[in-house]
Amino acid sequence: MAKKEGNTALKIIPLGGLHEIGKNTCVFEYEDEMILLDAGLAFPTDGMHGVNIVLPDMSYVRENRHKIKGMVVTHGHEDHIGGIAFHLKQFEIPVIHGPRLAMAMLEGKLEEAGVRDRTELKTVLPRDIVRIGKHFLVEYIRNTHSMADSFTVAIHTPIGVVIHTGDFKFDHTPVDGESFDLQRLAEHGEKGVLCLMSDSTNSEVPGFTPSERSVYPNLDRVFSQADGRLFVTTFASSVHRINIILQLAKKHRRTVSIVGRSMLNLIAHARNLGYIKCEDDLFQPLNSIRNLPDKDVLILTTGSQGEPMSALTRISNKQHPHIKIREGDTVVFSANPIPGNTIAVVNTIDRLMMQGAKVVYGRHQGIHVSGHGCQEDQKLMLALTRPKFFLPIHGEHRMLIKHSETAQKIGVPAENMVIINNGNIVELTTNSIKVAGKVESGIELVDTSGSGMVSDRVLQERQRMAEEGLVTIAAAIDWNGKLLAKPEIHVRGVVTTIERSLIQKRIKQRIEEILGMRWPEFFQQFD
Amino acid sequence: MAKKEGNTALKIIPLGGLHEIGKNTCVFEYEDEMILLDAGLAFPTDGMHGVNIVLPDMSYVRENRHKIKGMVVTHGHEDHIGGIAFHLKQFEIPVIHGPRLAMAMLEGKLEEAGVRDRTELKTVLPRDIVRIGKHFLVEYIRNTHSMADSFTVAIHTPIGVVIHTGDFKFDHTPVDGESFDLQRLAEHGEKGVLCLMSDSTNSEVPGFTPSERSVYPNLDRVFSQADGRLFVTTFASSVHRINIILQLAKKHRRTVSIVGRSMLNLIAHARNLGYIKCEDDLFQPLNSIRNLPDKDVLILTTGSQGEPMSALTRISNKQHPHIKIREGDTVVFSANPIPGNTIAVVNTIDRLMMQGAKVVYGRHQGIHVSGHGCQEDQKLMLALTRPKFFLPIHGEHRMLIKHSETAQKIGVPAENMVIINNGNIVELTTNSIKVAGKVESGIELVDTSGSGMVSDRVLQERQRMAEEGLVTIAAAIDWNGKLLAKPEIHVRGVVTTIERSLIQKRIKQRIEEILGMRWPEFFQQFD
Ligand SMILES: [Zn+2]
Ligand SMILES: [Zn+2]
Ligand SMILES: [Zn+2]
Ligand SMILES: [Zn+2]
Repeated sequence: MAKKEGNTALKIIPLGGLHEIGKNTCVFEYEDEMILLDAGLAFPTDGMHGVNIVLPDMSYVRENRHKIKGMVVTHGHEDHIGGIAFHLKQFEIPVIHGPRLAMAMLEGKLEEAGVRDRTELKTVLPRDIVRIGKHFLVEYIRNTHSMADSFTVAIHTPIGVVIHTGDFKFDHTPVDGESFDLQRLAEHGEKGVLCLMSDSTNSEVPGFTPSERSVYPNLDRVFSQADGRLFVTTFASSVHRINIILQLAKKHRRTVSIVGRSMLNLIAHARNLGYIKCEDDLFQPLNSIRNLPDKDVLILTTGSQGEPMSALTRISNKQHPHIKIREGDTVVFSANPIPGNTIAVVNTIDRLMMQGAKVVYGRHQGIHVSGHGCQEDQKLMLALTRPKFFLPIHGEHRMLIKHSETAQKIGVPAENMVIINNGNIVELTTNSIKVAGKVESGIELVDTSGSGMVSDRVLQERQRMAEEGLVTIAAAIDWNGKLLAKPEIHVRGVVTTIERSLIQKRIKQRIEEILGMRWPEFFQQFD
Repeated sequence: MAKKEGNTALKIIPLGGLHEIGKNTCVFEYEDEMILLDAGLAFPTDGMHGVNIVLPDMSYVRENRHKIKGMVVTHGHEDHIGGIAFHLKQFEIPVIHGPRLAMAMLEGKLEEAGVRDRTELKTVLPRDIVRIGKHFLVEYIRNTHSMADSFTVAIHTPIGVVIHTGDFKFDHTPVDGESFDLQRLAEHGEKGVLCLMSDSTNSEVPGFTPSERSVYPNLDRVFSQADGRLFVTTFASSVHRINIILQLAKKHRRTVSIVGRSMLNLIAHARNLGYIKCEDDLFQPLNSIRNLPDKDVLILTTGSQGEPMSALTRISNKQHPHIKIREGDTVVFSANPIPGNTIAVVNTIDRLMMQGAKVVYGRHQGIHVSGHGCQEDQKLMLALTRPKFFLPIHGEHRMLIKHSETAQKIGVPAENMVIINNGNIVELTTNSIKVAGKVESGIELVDTSGSGMVSDRVLQERQRMAEEGLVTIAAAIDWNGKLLAKPEIHVRGVVTTIERSLIQKRIKQRIEEILGMRWPEFFQQFD
């Protein structure tokens, strides 16, 4: 689409992913048209009792559903696609464009949720350009990230090109050989980029993020030191890492058993699409691997974050039906704990060690690298695209601030960037960027039971019961204010130094006292 | 006491502080005599709803209270003295020996708890030797740590000398000029140490822990870059850090206001005893500091760990009655988050930034160092004392394992050390160390309300209510199984997609159905 001067501003409205890591969800709106870019989920934090999944408040999109022309997906991580199946229950999306691996995973989710018919899924290849509505052309630019088949997108709009990096780091030696398309980025930089929206995850960390490939020799060393069974855990979605682990399994002649549904699922899709290349006979199910010598076994498992229901956590708790740790086992954590998971992870490590496993973990081992670029990656992105305006995204507040400082060092003027929160309406024109109001925003909490949304009121009630406990009293009273029978008293979660039977007795006494003194007063209220 | 060959084994029974960081509590028992070394508290972890303080199960000590000859305190941190006031309600301790600063703080705690009369407090100076009972002589050896007036102790027993490091690092340039008494340690190493019990906190970290003094130039740089008001937060118990901050306040001509009860308390005691030296006119209360120019103000505050009720957290939440953040303020976090507090800390940082503060934080700044020695400090301790047997303490399981590996590198044979858990009975003789049984151990949870202990059953009830919510139904039924009135239904913390009024209606219907069908069956049960 030819760039022309539009009188209308482009509205960019992120509904999730700002002031947080998670549930990335962004709206682009121009006149009567709206496109969505990614729609992720987040996981509950402390105090969100009984909550399974956190979603952004989608009121604004729901109310403007007639404007939706389509959605753009950058890659298949849960914080980018995990919300889509839920949203499709509320509104239809005419078409969703995305990479093959992300679309394969999304298709499964939509089918499971029974909403496969509420959208059309279209896969894209590198350098594909898709038209959405009258006003948007979206160009897919291959990038490098911990998830395979990941993209940066250039959104051509009537007022100019907006580049949304998606999640990225600059990995010049990618495991799957799919290089970052620096040429297209540079070409946009040369022609002129109106605005860059860029991943801020590691904006507090100096330097470059090492290549995923740097993990290989370190894991190789760890593998060669293992005498008995080898357990390896990493993020179920880290395709490249899993690829390395499988290559090393082959090298060290270990047969692989995969434990954990999400990992099985991803490996199936990634092998299907060629992002992981290995023979079928590398794998065996758990029950047949049991007959192999310990030194020929590798168990690849979920649970790198100490998730309570994951296979590795259950193994560490001696609660896994089929796997017991024994002396001589080696367990490798090829992942760092995400802040908030640290305690769960180190407790898992301790429990595994207590059962006799040798556990390899920690930052000094070189067996994990981030999928997101650090300050130098972020500078390179800014230098390649040379944007007029800058919008740091995908990060908590202080990360956005640090990223904006980095952008200023590269020469973007401070007045050409805004630090925003979810729900902010960013108005972008050919010569200005500003926050112009706010749409409804916040979070929606999906209950563990899957039966509905957890409201603030419910959370407060749950928090209060958790902190203080609850006493319920059922008393039948006649019209003269006398107890008809012994009141039924139930005490749950209440701390006291006196015995429960005594509590019951005291409560009964107190009820009788109150009835004696104040019955006429209560009685009047019923009149 | 002359070392002699005893037939009786020395029992070492840690009741807290192992497989955790916190609530360090250790029993030494020889024949009919028992001494305690430290008695700390810990803070609740996830899922301990409504719990304020975690204490070790003291059943074993309570049952053997007649054997208690006295207690030895190494230093004044909460994880070493915080449990004493609670325990004194259960049993008396004839005498407690400890450093002046720790004893000053302990005295206040005992008075507050009304148990000051249940023990005798005796202060010690470096190289003091105190006799406790017939069998124990305890020698106080000055060490260096984040808390001033801290000690390693050499416990002379009938079977030999046991050295308990307390908490330590080797700081050759201590802020208060009180050097680690390497000479006494070395002398014990020369004469022969039967067993070393050593601090494992940083046993996963290579290298030496930097001197506390290394923080000075970095904080100095941060202070000189602040134009407006300066807020500084650190651990309330880090005497040396507070000392540095006050020195820098004087240098930069800022008047100091202290916010937070625990910090006020510690600074008062430390100034009193000469561990912090500064003039009275350096300080002013909050209400008068308000009249000073911003650049002349330093507010020293608690809240470095994002504790919900602390001053800085309340300031960040805009809930502090007297302090509001404004543009131009600088807030300095001179402390790293303890694992488990990370989320609370970064959220506090984000909220302060959103209100316009410049926040200085993070490992790259050099404005925090640990008070515990790393692997090289631990090696130096082993090299100076040359122990026959080794017992790693003060750490989670994997830290104990790492520390035992370090000890093996220094030449202690693997069979001369044991990895233990709280409640294990370590039997030590002149030529053997072994685990010989277990005493009752576990945790006791003090309720937020202070009214009693939180049992496992109460915690489970609280957890269940927090996850699922609770429905209570009170129904009055006549002898024929008919509802006498509309049942009272209360729904708390329950997630549902239907309206509450509709829930009430449905529950009533269901009660009537059940009464209709099954009343005769219920009725029989009453017969
Ligand atoms: Zn991603
Ligand atoms: Zn992401
Ligand atoms: Zn300490
Ligand atoms: Zn300690």
